[in-house]
Amino acid sequence: MTSHQPTGSTGPSGPTGTVVPAASTGTRLDPWYGSYSARTHGMRASEIRALFAVANRPEVVSLAGGMPNIADLPMGRFADTVADLLRTRGTRALQYGSGQGEPELRTQITEVMALEQINAHPDDVVVTTGSQQALDLVARIFLDPGDVVVAEAPSYVGALGVFRAYEADVVHTPMDADGLVPEALDELLTRLAAQGRRAKLLYTVPNFHNPGGVTLSLERRPRVVEVARRHGVLILEDNPYGLLGFDGDPLPALASFAPDDVVYLGSFSKTFAPGYRLGWALAPHAVREKLVLASESAILCPSVAAQLTVSAYLTQFDWRAQVKEYRLMYAERRDAMVGALAEHLPTCSWTTPEGGFYVWLRLPDGLDSREMLPRAVTSLVAYVPGTAFYADGQGSTHLRLSYCYPTPERIVEGVRRLAGVVNAEADLVRMFGTAASRPHGVESPATGTL
Amino acid sequence: MTSHQPTGSTGPSGPTGTVVPAASTGTRLDPWYGSYSARTHGMRASEIRALFAVANRPEVVSLAGGMPNIADLPMGRFADTVADLLRTRGTRALQYGSGQGEPELRTQITEVMALEQINAHPDDVVVTTGSQQALDLVARIFLDPGDVVVAEAPSYVGALGVFRAYEADVVHTPMDADGLVPEALDELLTRLAAQGRRAKLLYTVPNFHNPGGVTLSLERRPRVVEVARRHGVLILEDNPYGLLGFDGDPLPALASFAPDDVVYLGSFSKTFAPGYRLGWALAPHAVREKLVLASESAILCPSVAAQLTVSAYLTQFDWRAQVKEYRLMYAERRDAMVGALAEHLPTCSWTTPEGGFYVWLRLPDGLDSREMLPRAVTSLVAYVPGTAFYADGQGSTHLRLSYCYPTPERIVEGVRRLAGVVNAEADLVRMFGTAASRPHGVESPATGTL
Repeated sequence: MTSHQPTGSTGPSGPTGTVVPAASTGTRLDPWYGSYSARTHGMRASEIRALFAVANRPEVVSLAGGMPNIADLPMGRFADTVADLLRTRGTRALQYGSGQGEPELRTQITEVMALEQINAHPDDVVVTTGSQQALDLVARIFLDPGDVVVAEAPSYVGALGVFRAYEADVVHTPMDADGLVPEALDELLTRLAAQGRRAKLLYTVPNFHNPGGVTLSLERRPRVVEVARRHGVLILEDNPYGLLGFDGDPLPALASFAPDDVVYLGSFSKTFAPGYRLGWALAPHAVREKLVLASESAILCPSVAAQLTVSAYLTQFDWRAQVKEYRLMYAERRDAMVGALAEHLPTCSWTTPEGGFYVWLRLPDGLDSREMLPRAVTSLVAYVPGTAFYADGQGSTHLRLSYCYPTPERIVEGVRRLAGVVNAEADLVRMFGTAASRPHGVESPATGTL
Repeated sequence: MTSHQPTGSTGPSGPTGTVVPAASTGTRLDPWYGSYSARTHGMRASEIRALFAVANRPEVVSLAGGMPNIADLPMGRFADTVADLLRTRGTRALQYGSGQGEPELRTQITEVMALEQINAHPDDVVVTTGSQQALDLVARIFLDPGDVVVAEAPSYVGALGVFRAYEADVVHTPMDADGLVPEALDELLTRLAAQGRRAKLLYTVPNFHNPGGVTLSLERRPRVVEVARRHGVLILEDNPYGLLGFDGDPLPALASFAPDDVVYLGSFSKTFAPGYRLGWALAPHAVREKLVLASESAILCPSVAAQLTVSAYLTQFDWRAQVKEYRLMYAERRDAMVGALAEHLPTCSWTTPEGGFYVWLRLPDGLDSREMLPRAVTSLVAYVPGTAFYADGQGSTHLRLSYCYPTPERIVEGVRRLAGVVNAEADLVRMFGTAASRPHGVESPATGTL
């Protein structure tokens, strides 16, 4: 599943605070400008990237990033475990390994997926450098320029970036409070077929959607699978947050209904930690073979050291209890955010997620989340404008708020600051009909003054 | 630089011994066959892959793989170092990081490159998941289908796989005992231009070539740079072995002559160990920006845990002394191989490398290295047929022998076994004019009996 956090296209290049300057788009300074591939000319640093460099300063409350909070991992005992691994199996851990991933970890991955009713064989698992690499590999083996990927509206920014890198066209399909709407998907796929456009993939985040905050209902799951199958569209099920539900058991994955029609992406970034960059794909047999070949071409093999380390963690620690602790911690932060929103931003509406990291907030009429961002950063709070999550320019009415990383106190303070900005904007809209004339004298980030 | 070992396209999927079955090429069993991208239809498992599954058995002396020998690393002390890192900076090591790589490691990488006269700024270094990923990223940002990559004849199999994955055409340019021939390169680029074909990259392994075993002479280095610059071709300098020369100081890198015309790839896989999958690219500024964007799309960021670990190794260990130990160890193995070849295979000729991992051996006339491989494996010795290192079907007269991983005793035994096979084949050629009629009743591996 992709580390669902906006490092890729819209985030700070380093959630840890490293600042990478926005890429220049000019030709004068680059003697190799004429040599780039077609796909590279469509590749650009986000226009809000420079702004996030500012937003990374410690005085800013960032509700923008998707970094998990790993402060409570039992780091001392973990350090001992890793040292023991290196002492006893160091020459294996530090050597090349299998392109598909180490068998022992792939077996453990099937045990993790069993919690979502997936009955998988380790042979059909491909270990990747974070599930972002799995996304890239799936795009690589399926997408030609001009192919259509159907994705929820809104959709994960890092996936949109991958599809763009392979020159595919993303067409959005609507969600409601129960997630992806099967009937609307069916209509869309019918319409695309009538237009002679080939939809190859349905990209979906069924659980605790990034950024939408909603979950595909149990009742809809087999219906989504049926619609996709009828149209011959492979489902790309991206599931980083499935085990991070605040109440009840995890829902069965789409892959559990239709293993031959789904490539499922999972990750250790949210249930353990992102630092080893370990994710995976579970794929139908023939697709899995292609993924392995593509991955060998891309990286030869995933890190054996990382794989044996995570494998040892899963064996020697009660990782299920750790996930439960994470759930409680994130639930508390979700409550802090939703409570603060109710108190300070009654003019907005938002989703109340039952798991995961994100709230999707709708601004009062007339406000524009991208236009407003520089003013928010000036007021020492950051978020991701909704436009980042659409391939077609929509989203200015919404923004994404993350509650995963800041403490509850910081979350409340961030929402308070955001409310000040939103309310001031709303006042301007009431008085002048728009807030877009930038009465504060702050330029749009697109023009690059911040 | 790419982990120069044949895991990718021709090697065992797991140098550690994991067997991945060859990909099926049929359509009947794969309902998604019609959905793959054009690039995927050109992607296939090597025909000798199944054979290598057999060659991985312990009774076979494998002179095929490119695994470094890391048995002598001070693993106990290293384990302590890693544990200390996790105890003191664990929450940073296990978090997301910068897409470009951690600044402290990038600074250390510039110190490594300084040994080859490269004067680089950490800002122009991009850390990658092994230098294979750097190869993939360079191909991604430069190559459209049908673009030409000029590469030495022969060339690294993993790079050929990457260029094929981006649907580029590889055109080989000759080497001799002093490496790439500048005059021949000039002629080739002139001829390509006259044909209206766009050569975008010159891919070269200047030091201890894989598989050629030769090194580009100091005198030729500025001339190669001049020719490429005159033709507007970017040089992709792949240098995993540069510090592993057996005598004298490392030669200055091509990048040291022309930093604006070269993307240089380096790796820790051979100077330290492959298990953390850490390599890097040094690129001209504007190219570096594109590489970072491409890498964020591919993997979000390289592993922070891996980067801080290697960084701590470089700080707390005498890595230069370790490289010197590696040099002595590999020199001894080179001597064992070359000595055994002189004793047992006087009918062949071969390169005597002054560093790195590989000997390139020419068979007696009439022998075919690919045809012979099943017989070699039956005789419990494995190598990589020369055909793996050409994009155009050449190479059957040659084979690659690795001396990096087996002990000197095993190397000598492997060469002795190989000599038995070669001499038996040569006898057949003398008697019947060919060995290709398979008098042993062994099918060609291409037909899949092994």
